[in-house]
Amino acid sequence: MNRDLPRIAVDAMGGDFGPEVVVPGALQAVRSGAAAAVLVGREPDIRKVLDRESTQGLDIEIQHASEMVEMDEKPSEALRLKKDSSIRVAASLVKQGRCHGMISAGNSGATVAAGMFVLGRIRGVERPALAGLMPTEKKPIVLVDVGANVDSKPFHLAQFGIMGSVLAQDVLDRRSPKIGLLTIGEEEGKGNTVVRTAYEMLKKSSLNFVGNVEGRDIFTGEVDVVVCDGFVGNVALKLSEGLASSLTRMLKSELSGDIVSRMGAMLAMSAFRRFKRVVDSSEYGGAPVLGLKGSAMVCHGASNARAITRAVEIAARFHENKVQDHLVEGLAANKDLASFGRQKPASDAA
Amino acid sequence: MNRDLPRIAVDAMGGDFGPEVVVPGALQAVRSGAAAAVLVGREPDIRKVLDRESTQGLDIEIQHASEMVEMDEKPSEALRLKKDSSIRVAASLVKQGRCHGMISAGNSGATVAAGMFVLGRIRGVERPALAGLMPTEKKPIVLVDVGANVDSKPFHLAQFGIMGSVLAQDVLDRRSPKIGLLTIGEEEGKGNTVVRTAYEMLKKSSLNFVGNVEGRDIFTGEVDVVVCDGFVGNVALKLSEGLASSLTRMLKSELSGDIVSRMGAMLAMSAFRRFKRVVDSSEYGGAPVLGLKGSAMVCHGASNARAITRAVEIAARFHENKVQDHLVEGLAANKDLASFGRQKPASDAA
Repeated sequence: MNRDLPRIAVDAMGGDFGPEVVVPGALQAVRSGAAAAVLVGREPDIRKVLDRESTQGLDIEIQHASEMVEMDEKPSEALRLKKDSSIRVAASLVKQGRCHGMISAGNSGATVAAGMFVLGRIRGVERPALAGLMPTEKKPIVLVDVGANVDSKPFHLAQFGIMGSVLAQDVLDRRSPKIGLLTIGEEEGKGNTVVRTAYEMLKKSSLNFVGNVEGRDIFTGEVDVVVCDGFVGNVALKLSEGLASSLTRMLKSELSGDIVSRMGAMLAMSAFRRFKRVVDSSEYGGAPVLGLKGSAMVCHGASNARAITRAVEIAARFHENKVQDHLVEGLAANKDLASFGRQKPASDAA
Repeated sequence: MNRDLPRIAVDAMGGDFGPEVVVPGALQAVRSGAAAAVLVGREPDIRKVLDRESTQGLDIEIQHASEMVEMDEKPSEALRLKKDSSIRVAASLVKQGRCHGMISAGNSGATVAAGMFVLGRIRGVERPALAGLMPTEKKPIVLVDVGANVDSKPFHLAQFGIMGSVLAQDVLDRRSPKIGLLTIGEEEGKGNTVVRTAYEMLKKSSLNFVGNVEGRDIFTGEVDVVVCDGFVGNVALKLSEGLASSLTRMLKSELSGDIVSRMGAMLAMSAFRRFKRVVDSSEYGGAPVLGLKGSAMVCHGASNARAITRAVEIAARFHENKVQDHLVEGLAANKDLASFGRQKPASDAA
């Protein structure tokens, strides 16, 4: 065992395809030298897949967990009733210091909840957030929150910005990341009540806050971090995924057309692929949960092996680049913003 | 003059290109026999464009208006200070019964405000809404609200659904339109506080309410009307536009690549065009403002002539299909929902 490698707990039971996809995905990250992995879940199921793979010399372990959380289970109940679920056991490995981070493509609510209850929140964090790593036309950006919270308060949004900035710095290698606040209309004072107060907070923060951005600015890659409530972020994320799927279906229907459009569609595949990558969630594997005392990452239920590989690599990077330490520092440096929020919410609409 | 044709007041000064684009766009709708048009704005500017066009036998008039609202002006101020602005004069033509509807590609806040203050709201309507007509993979749908309101209350969302249903029926020819509520997670009880209460109201309404839909469902065209707060709807609309622009830029860069990708890109143009149409705002020209005593439509500032033509045609359809009458009926039939909202907002998050 190479003790220097980041060691990632991988929920082997998670995702639409379970160990069949998750285990090969995790192995690939280990093969690439990015991380060591602890595969968490039903040992026989995991071993069955491992037996088909060449694993000699790879730094992998199995941690048996007898239960698993179903995709449609209520997160809080599942956590309480299934003490030996793979998600909960993976979180415990991080809590105990046996792993440096965890990833799961299973029930995302349960993963966030396991993070909250097993790992706990960083001091001062009111709401941990899901940070989407989104490829754009130019370079990947952070969209935060993409669904951990609804009805966020202004201070929550400000904290999303602080945590997103750390992520952009440590994982996407941005210096002094540009932070934008998602709203409708670019001018100061546009948006809803919560956003307008968050604007004032972000302006007073230590961040490189560049002001409001609109929906059309997300994919241009002009800013490094886009801050929004989890309701809005989740709609934006899923809308983008939906458009990518529509595109794929249209391309397929074109491939069954006449010879000219078939040739065209085939030749243009590269352009399509580039576009698809822009809105493809597998490119970055998963969404880190920010604000926990330990690193946890939620992957898409439909993750393929490549997405799992990428998620393990990013979880490893989290550890190597000391993201957790920087989150604690960034939040502490901006803790005064909390009191700021108790003031004047603006009022006019449209 | 053909008194039977719907007569549409067109703000000739609106949009990024003013009369140069708006006038030819409106003329095209008149030529097609869809409508008569009253071109509102500075007469010399309008006449300059008209002089270049063949207008013989066309049912068009000019209504001089000496002022215009700039794109970045504050709507309420602009309306108050510029009594002779083309937007305000166009709204007055509708108010006076001289026109059956108005369209403007100018300052959209000012157009909504002119609708509110000059035309007034339909009895019982708390918040008029902007309804986006969005092409999807299958067939166009209504997304409402796309930006007239932020911080909507549950009853507002329910009314958006009622008005959106009328629009889908009368303008998109749907029988018993399927209404979906935009949220995160499909199961009942998902979403934020406002959405959960709106869900209950919509369930009790006279509508064909099919439940929650997610961001990824917008472009599949499974439902006919997607209901959301204007903040969320505006982000969704602009995100889609942004993706369309990204696609176009990528295609262009592909066209300057090697001969194979250039051929591919050219041959695949039809697939690209189809996709682009899915997220192209010019396809439906504009967003009707629903809930006013008179028909008004907001067009995109970047509208091309085709978008203006489409908007005039849809405004004409509004009149022919008695949309206003049906809005009044639909709202009256569901007026009891207002009191329903005064109850129990749900509370848990994530």
